[in-house]
Amino acid sequence: MSQKSAFSASTYEMRISKVRVSMQEAGIDALVVSPSSDLVYLCGYDAPVLERPTLLIVDEDSEPLLLVPRLEAARVLEPTTEVVKVLPWSETDDPYEKAASALRGARRIGVGDQMWSAHLIELLRKLPDAEYRKASDAISPVRCRKEPEELELLERAARAADAVASGLSDIVSLGMTEREAAQAISSALLESGCDDVEFVIVASGPNSASPHHEPSDRRISRGDVVVCDFGGPVSGYHSDITRTMVFGNPPEGFDRVYAVVLEAQRSGVEAASSGTAAATVDRAARAVIEKAGYGDRFIHRTGHGIGLDIHEAPYIAENAVDVLEEGMCFSIEPGIYLEGVWGIRIEDIVVAGKNEGIRLNRSSRDVIYA
Amino acid sequence: MSQKSAFSASTYEMRISKVRVSMQEAGIDALVVSPSSDLVYLCGYDAPVLERPTLLIVDEDSEPLLLVPRLEAARVLEPTTEVVKVLPWSETDDPYEKAASALRGARRIGVGDQMWSAHLIELLRKLPDAEYRKASDAISPVRCRKEPEELELLERAARAADAVASGLSDIVSLGMTEREAAQAISSALLESGCDDVEFVIVASGPNSASPHHEPSDRRISRGDVVVCDFGGPVSGYHSDITRTMVFGNPPEGFDRVYAVVLEAQRSGVEAASSGTAAATVDRAARAVIEKAGYGDRFIHRTGHGIGLDIHEAPYIAENAVDVLEEGMCFSIEPGIYLEGVWGIRIEDIVVAGKNEGIRLNRSSRDVIYA
Repeated sequence: MSQKSAFSASTYEMRISKVRVSMQEAGIDALVVSPSSDLVYLCGYDAPVLERPTLLIVDEDSEPLLLVPRLEAARVLEPTTEVVKVLPWSETDDPYEKAASALRGARRIGVGDQMWSAHLIELLRKLPDAEYRKASDAISPVRCRKEPEELELLERAARAADAVASGLSDIVSLGMTEREAAQAISSALLESGCDDVEFVIVASGPNSASPHHEPSDRRISRGDVVVCDFGGPVSGYHSDITRTMVFGNPPEGFDRVYAVVLEAQRSGVEAASSGTAAATVDRAARAVIEKAGYGDRFIHRTGHGIGLDIHEAPYIAENAVDVLEEGMCFSIEPGIYLEGVWGIRIEDIVVAGKNEGIRLNRSSRDVIYA
Repeated sequence: MSQKSAFSASTYEMRISKVRVSMQEAGIDALVVSPSSDLVYLCGYDAPVLERPTLLIVDEDSEPLLLVPRLEAARVLEPTTEVVKVLPWSETDDPYEKAASALRGARRIGVGDQMWSAHLIELLRKLPDAEYRKASDAISPVRCRKEPEELELLERAARAADAVASGLSDIVSLGMTEREAAQAISSALLESGCDDVEFVIVASGPNSASPHHEPSDRRISRGDVVVCDFGGPVSGYHSDITRTMVFGNPPEGFDRVYAVVLEAQRSGVEAASSGTAAATVDRAARAVIEKAGYGDRFIHRTGHGIGLDIHEAPYIAENAVDVLEEGMCFSIEPGIYLEGVWGIRIEDIVVAGKNEGIRLNRSSRDVIYA
């Protein structure tokens, strides 16, 4: 029941025209998009993700068409109804045939990245000769350039995450299980103004070396390193922050490794100026860690774009091809993971600025001793 | 952070062998399944649904292979590791190439219904000559025949939903907004033993005629019909119940229409014996409503299967082809919707029994006057 922000009809119309230009550049004749962040972005309709297909079809110049199950037609409200033509289908109709009719002129079809394959397979049957591409080829170049109103919401989400990060030493206590700590962080995120909680990682002791650890029944003990990585949306726009805590005396070598990760993160943020290749930003962070001898312990990319999705373009990775532009928004989150022992990660959300990245997160990046 | 139930390795092995038999019957050479209920069902791994592909590959006879992003490899625990061979891929690898290598012998590939199309499109590029089918063609016939332990969890989830349904007149009050009422129902579901809340519909006044209404800021007023439809999982297995409330005096004609829906629901449940076609069960409920003159106001199928997904096979619909078997579990939820005025729906979860359907929900189906 999270509330996605409603923009005005003119905002959606502007986005659709930009995406149409982008479709031409990407060589895509038509898009078909199902309930997902793409659908919310393009027409403001936040639909349940279920087996009955809801499909938005955008071609070069016709009025965008929204196929919806008849029983959900009443959910489609203004401003969506000003932007798309709503076409309800009944339980005994074949919605894929209706979609195929609308798509029949298109040779190259861009399919929403998050659309369930079950829907795509039905389309493959109806339109076997089309060439299928990822809709993100056309949509991401538009979505990753955030509008001022989007940046404002990302800023508010970052504020909420910062408030929780600053209070971590009060929220997470010795003796809590990881799950209990994650629950406490969730409650704090809601109190701080997030509409919802998207995810919470609490990874304690040896679990801190597992970047995407699922909170378990392990109790936080004295001497533990605890990586806390969490976020929630404000009006659909996400936050994502990581801070590292230590309970009692840090393990041997911890302070030195922490300083390396902190320096890598600073280096990544500084490099994140408009005009810089995303791969160069990854390199800036990675070089610091490699130089310190931990290159093989930094087992993930430096960051990911963020917006209506928690992970979206641009990806800040070794093999990325994107070049940053002003207003692009992404995480910078290097980490060092000593398998079976402990790990450290420090993450902020950053906007590409003229000379360097501008942090949306402003809470202290120091070790949180508890 | 909902907890999916961990079954033993032997349960997953049994499921995989059954699915392999089903693959042969469906003419599918290999399955590729991403994070979803299918993945949980087949190997107990509950993975985050993100852009980095996690792919389970099951062919005729090789050891099942689980491709996971390296940074998530430590999430894969027993008993999953006893059932599949885990193959981590690194950030600079091409995971789709690895998947394609494992799939290269397969002519007909069953793709997880909920897999993101972005992943399928990458596979289409690598393996353009394969025939792509829905994995549900092979998996659903196994998944829809619930094991005793699964039925036990569905029963527990139904108990939790029943507890909330029985207390609705205390939970939902005059003057609440739909959103506030939905929030109160969510809290009650968690208190009653659900691990999570999957969805809550509170549809008041004219909104009650919109079957998948999204709770809004409309306040519940005297004279309102309010349809409450909600559920949450216990160890991953879902509940789903609908009851209809009236605040103050019911609107004209309400009692007569309520009696029709109640009778249609009873008729559907009674028809739901093993050996009966799902379409026949739909007909049994629909006939009652048609006879009363409201056929065109019952704008959805009679029900849907339920288990690890809130909607899954078997579907109880006019054009369904499935025949019910003992142990299949599904909703029976006819409704009548007078557009712009009010609507009524009554829903229970039912298991196909020898002579008739056996309700898992036992809370009163009478109108709830408040």
